[in-house]
Amino acid sequence: MLIVDCHGHYTTAPAPHQDFRNAQLAHFEDPSLPAPLPAVISDDEIRESIENNQLRLQKERGADVTLFSPRASAMAHHLGDGEVSKTWSRACNDLIKRVVDLYPENFIGACQLPQSPGVPVSESIDELERCVNELGFVGCNLNPDPSGGHWTSPPLTDRAWYPFFEKMVELDVPAMIHVSGTCNRNFHATGAHYINADTTAFMQFVQGDLFRDLPSLRFVIPHGGGAVPYHWGRYRGLADMLKQPPLSEHVMNNVFFDTCVYHQPGIDLLFEVISIDNILFGSEMVGAVRGIDPLTGHYFDDTKRYVDSLELSEEDRIKVYSGNIRRVYPRLDTILKTQGR
Amino acid sequence: MLIVDCHGHYTTAPAPHQDFRNAQLAHFEDPSLPAPLPAVISDDEIRESIENNQLRLQKERGADVTLFSPRASAMAHHLGDGEVSKTWSRACNDLIKRVVDLYPENFIGACQLPQSPGVPVSESIDELERCVNELGFVGCNLNPDPSGGHWTSPPLTDRAWYPFFEKMVELDVPAMIHVSGTCNRNFHATGAHYINADTTAFMQFVQGDLFRDLPSLRFVIPHGGGAVPYHWGRYRGLADMLKQPPLSEHVMNNVFFDTCVYHQPGIDLLFEVISIDNILFGSEMVGAVRGIDPLTGHYFDDTKRYVDSLELSEEDRIKVYSGNIRRVYPRLDTILKTQGR
Repeated sequence: MLIVDCHGHYTTAPAPHQDFRNAQLAHFEDPSLPAPLPAVISDDEIRESIENNQLRLQKERGADVTLFSPRASAMAHHLGDGEVSKTWSRACNDLIKRVVDLYPENFIGACQLPQSPGVPVSESIDELERCVNELGFVGCNLNPDPSGGHWTSPPLTDRAWYPFFEKMVELDVPAMIHVSGTCNRNFHATGAHYINADTTAFMQFVQGDLFRDLPSLRFVIPHGGGAVPYHWGRYRGLADMLKQPPLSEHVMNNVFFDTCVYHQPGIDLLFEVISIDNILFGSEMVGAVRGIDPLTGHYFDDTKRYVDSLELSEEDRIKVYSGNIRRVYPRLDTILKTQGR
Repeated sequence: MLIVDCHGHYTTAPAPHQDFRNAQLAHFEDPSLPAPLPAVISDDEIRESIENNQLRLQKERGADVTLFSPRASAMAHHLGDGEVSKTWSRACNDLIKRVVDLYPENFIGACQLPQSPGVPVSESIDELERCVNELGFVGCNLNPDPSGGHWTSPPLTDRAWYPFFEKMVELDVPAMIHVSGTCNRNFHATGAHYINADTTAFMQFVQGDLFRDLPSLRFVIPHGGGAVPYHWGRYRGLADMLKQPPLSEHVMNNVFFDTCVYHQPGIDLLFEVISIDNILFGSEMVGAVRGIDPLTGHYFDDTKRYVDSLELSEEDRIKVYSGNIRRVYPRLDTILKTQGR
């Protein structure tokens, strides 16, 4: 059975890549400093960073392909400005492309967007088109809060986002809703901001009518949908109070959750309350939580173990491990078919 | 068996109370308008508002006592200023006191605090002391984000909060972490802001060392602990990555979750992953979700039904329904004992 992980980040990029970022931000703060160029990184450096990490874990844990995007916490759309974000995003996406070219059977690309607080998201369309049409990427990560924890953008259901969404529909690529690091010290990035953003986005979709306007727009909400499955009764009840259709019609034709929930009881709940057609296997590795669970002796983020422990029919197992993601990301399906998979 | 609901709000206060609030805010915006006085509300008006709602539901659902506080979404600390918040909080708390005096066997008071963005939380100490020492209240609702969705205050682990926390310790009263309505349109109040605040506060406690400094400080995180139990593996793993002690030692001697989770699978998860000593029965009624679940034919917020469906020992059932809350709120225990319960 083909196993596709819908949520992997290049958290282990070679150090010169971050050095470039640091120099870029230093130049932004002090334009008298030299304007740096993206790091020159050899294929061997990339191989080492991947083979010892994501590729090793892919093999150890038994996944075949990872939908791979730049490190989310390093997108940091709140730093610099729109131009800085464009340059940084291009460098990050180009590096993903090189990983995909080195390991085309193991990684398929999803892009970072050059969002920036106060800059219209339509400014991100060019990079989306470049990544999809020129680099062969199949999706993108969309940040609902480029301010990094101040939430100064309009909600995702606001028409300000529509030009970008219309381009997603035209290209037939979904977005993973994914915030980045935060400059608001109330929010720990991976422990609060990520989960809050997932929950917030879902509730925006419940309140709004985005999918009535754009019925083929698709989002993946990572980290198991934030708080949503645990509070599924609350969300069903709120949809009812807001006089919206049932969630299954109103939201769940367009929204999908990954399995980045780092313990068995959470995965059990996810599969109990969410339709099997809306769940995509994901691990967020090498990611937010890197340690070994003392209760199980296994890595927290080895989410395949939790999914394998479920009593699923063969049909449902195929859906979670590859069928759903092939349906949600048609361009990924095309790549896999080209490879005879 | 005595059944105590730790989470009830006076969401059904007579209309003149809200009229006063509206006039108060109008006067704040335009000081040429008359400065209103708190509404004159008769005992009969209070009886009607309670007997048709909270008291009726208490009896129908089989609870005995509710820890009762002002309507959370109406605290609206982000409106007006510190003085407006003080006057409004006094009026809200005085109304709770009247409910308690009319139904001393059914309601015990917890207070709203006169927080205001930019105003030190130490300014809330006087009202806490008044409510505890003069009105006989046993706890308070603490808003970690008085800005109403902009999160401009320091995290709860910052020393700016310590004077208030030290007073809580001195009075031996816990706080429920509870935000109010929001002026940030990204966040639906009960669907996103409430749940996000619960998650955020918990992660702040994981990151910080608040309970090392104040080992007898106690918080209730409502709405089943936000996203935390669903992502319990994530939080255990993050504590480990942050080189903090295990959550059971680092946070869970001081933090308690209520049962405001509006479906059976969520309650099942809560009791599976969280120690029975940290769970307090609560319903948030009459609250965030008022409808009937079409899947069960029962009210979403009739959380007692979910708890009753669990296979708990008699000892554990007593803990959840009264033992834990008597331990966490010693002044509530004293009142119940005075009543021979």
